[in-house]
Amino acid sequence: MTSNDHAWMARALQLARKGLYSTHPNPRVGCVIVKDGELIGEGWHVRAGEPHAEVHALRQAGERAAGATAYVTLEPCSHYGRTPPCAEALVKAGVGRVVAAMQDPNPQVAGRGLKLLHSSGIEVASGVLESEARALNPGFIKRMETGLPYLRAKLAMSLDGRTAMASGESQWITGPDARAEVQRLRAQSSVVLTGADTVLMDNARLTVRAAELRLDDELSAHAIQRQPLRVLVDGRLRVPLEAPFFLAGPALVVASSEDQAARYQSTGHELLALAGETGRVDLPRLLHELAKRDVNEVLLEAGPRLAGAFAALGLIDEYQLFVAAKFLGSSARPLLDMPLDRMSEARELQIKDIRAVGNDWKITAVPSV
Amino acid sequence: MTSNDHAWMARALQLARKGLYSTHPNPRVGCVIVKDGELIGEGWHVRAGEPHAEVHALRQAGERAAGATAYVTLEPCSHYGRTPPCAEALVKAGVGRVVAAMQDPNPQVAGRGLKLLHSSGIEVASGVLESEARALNPGFIKRMETGLPYLRAKLAMSLDGRTAMASGESQWITGPDARAEVQRLRAQSSVVLTGADTVLMDNARLTVRAAELRLDDELSAHAIQRQPLRVLVDGRLRVPLEAPFFLAGPALVVASSEDQAARYQSTGHELLALAGETGRVDLPRLLHELAKRDVNEVLLEAGPRLAGAFAALGLIDEYQLFVAAKFLGSSARPLLDMPLDRMSEARELQIKDIRAVGNDWKITAVPSV
Repeated sequence: MTSNDHAWMARALQLARKGLYSTHPNPRVGCVIVKDGELIGEGWHVRAGEPHAEVHALRQAGERAAGATAYVTLEPCSHYGRTPPCAEALVKAGVGRVVAAMQDPNPQVAGRGLKLLHSSGIEVASGVLESEARALNPGFIKRMETGLPYLRAKLAMSLDGRTAMASGESQWITGPDARAEVQRLRAQSSVVLTGADTVLMDNARLTVRAAELRLDDELSAHAIQRQPLRVLVDGRLRVPLEAPFFLAGPALVVASSEDQAARYQSTGHELLALAGETGRVDLPRLLHELAKRDVNEVLLEAGPRLAGAFAALGLIDEYQLFVAAKFLGSSARPLLDMPLDRMSEARELQIKDIRAVGNDWKITAVPSV
Repeated sequence: MTSNDHAWMARALQLARKGLYSTHPNPRVGCVIVKDGELIGEGWHVRAGEPHAEVHALRQAGERAAGATAYVTLEPCSHYGRTPPCAEALVKAGVGRVVAAMQDPNPQVAGRGLKLLHSSGIEVASGVLESEARALNPGFIKRMETGLPYLRAKLAMSLDGRTAMASGESQWITGPDARAEVQRLRAQSSVVLTGADTVLMDNARLTVRAAELRLDDELSAHAIQRQPLRVLVDGRLRVPLEAPFFLAGPALVVASSEDQAARYQSTGHELLALAGETGRVDLPRLLHELAKRDVNEVLLEAGPRLAGAFAALGLIDEYQLFVAAKFLGSSARPLLDMPLDRMSEARELQIKDIRAVGNDWKITAVPSV
């Protein structure tokens, strides 16, 4: 591996990031093809069913691909999905060397792509900028490795850790820049997951709105072609079908019983019954169910009760805490409804990033393992 | 003013900062004397009763001071205090130009020092790096301008804004680096102010301990020559005289009545009665009283009740929030016991700084005006 390998892979990762909002349920992948130190082809995967990154790059390189080096942010696929395997396309093009950032965690690939290339006489390498490549597809990787989606909880709080006044008064704790960032988090997610409290209290629709994304035209166009699936946990079906949430488009409602399924179906929604032991919705089963539906990244936008329930079960992979520089005081609602008795039960976290977002701040934290 | 003026004043500010832990009740001041672009004398004020910064610098410069430029972080004094006026010393030395970062807010000076210099034919300028100079002495300036000390609240909290479990279990939320930073905050304060809850619950002594300061030898030596006055708000005298807090040295106890004053005095402490309307301690009067005793900076290290009472009264100038990357959950104690009903009552803040302190984070915030 050379420092050039790193530089070209960094370019491939940059291309892959363009797919942040559109590749669901596929991973974001970028590819560059280089010959004699010169870039001769590049591409990124735009959306499922369309060509993979390698195909775009090979098309651009044309016959010059013979003997060239291909940098791919994910091991080229070896199986027939909606498109033919990329590993074969690389062999056919006569590429001399393939460098992957990481192996494909998809059990249908899992090293077979690289093996196929190697057995065809192509020099292969893997692991260049691997951690950056993994960070690009946390949901796809977690789903392939564990059968669960990556659960990212978005919470807006005051500096004293409160999310709303006791009365429920809460809207616009954080400013417009934070709201645009939340729009982008929604747009990159397969699912936006919420609860009845949030939908009832804030009249929330939880949709992606083009005007609020603040992305450039190209990314914006890709983002709005696909709305994330909106999933509502509503064990006792408290949210009326006339709520703005339901009027905004089809949704998946998760309840404790399927009694009312027909009524939801007749208005374009789906009702899924997942009763847990206490009559509440079984949250771990819900996540398994979503993964079965090819859901990679879930954005949880819920009030303290539902977010607290996911947290207490240890199901949250990442917290995106938007912090407004104000105190809401000690009678205001907590960040997470999660009572703990002893300090030894405290949930340890690792802060990954703190940054200003307009007048607010965003803290990214993950549970310590 | 030239860019050289800025560079030399920056050096003078650097010298002034050496007095961070020792000049109480005086301001921190630094001085450099420059002739033909060459540094010929420098000094900083070490402690009250000892020479001012200008005197140190003039001594070092000797006869070369004639015609030189003196940079001082605070207007030279014009009055006889414990030492003769520095303005006269500068005149006597034949200095040609004096540049001050700011006017002295002391009503006994307030421009008179610069006027005296000017009327002696010396070229004067003021306002070079003024905001940096003001930041060096927030307590001295506030006391001179308003008759109140600068109140800095130190609070240690979890990422969900909690300070202790409901049971009171709390010690060591944050790590050793944060504790060293708190030691330095104490050492730079005129007063460490606390309440009965904290002293009883944590067996807190609230002293400055040389080994925990983590300063270089010179600064450490200056810091430990002076312990900040420890002030305990204990309206109903709940803390026994045998508590580690009282055994650690003389303290000022603020109560609602002076009934027990003799008992405290006989054990080396002072009892001050400051009853408010509701029988509680009158906190604004306490701050006025401290300012009368030449207190510049007060570090408030108290539990949610006392800290909440100061916050609710709008008396806190600055928050130093030490944030541990963990969740203590929704039954844990709040940051500030300060119930608010409506969002319009929320206390707006401005975040001045966020930085890593070991494994914890420190957020510096001030109330928005």
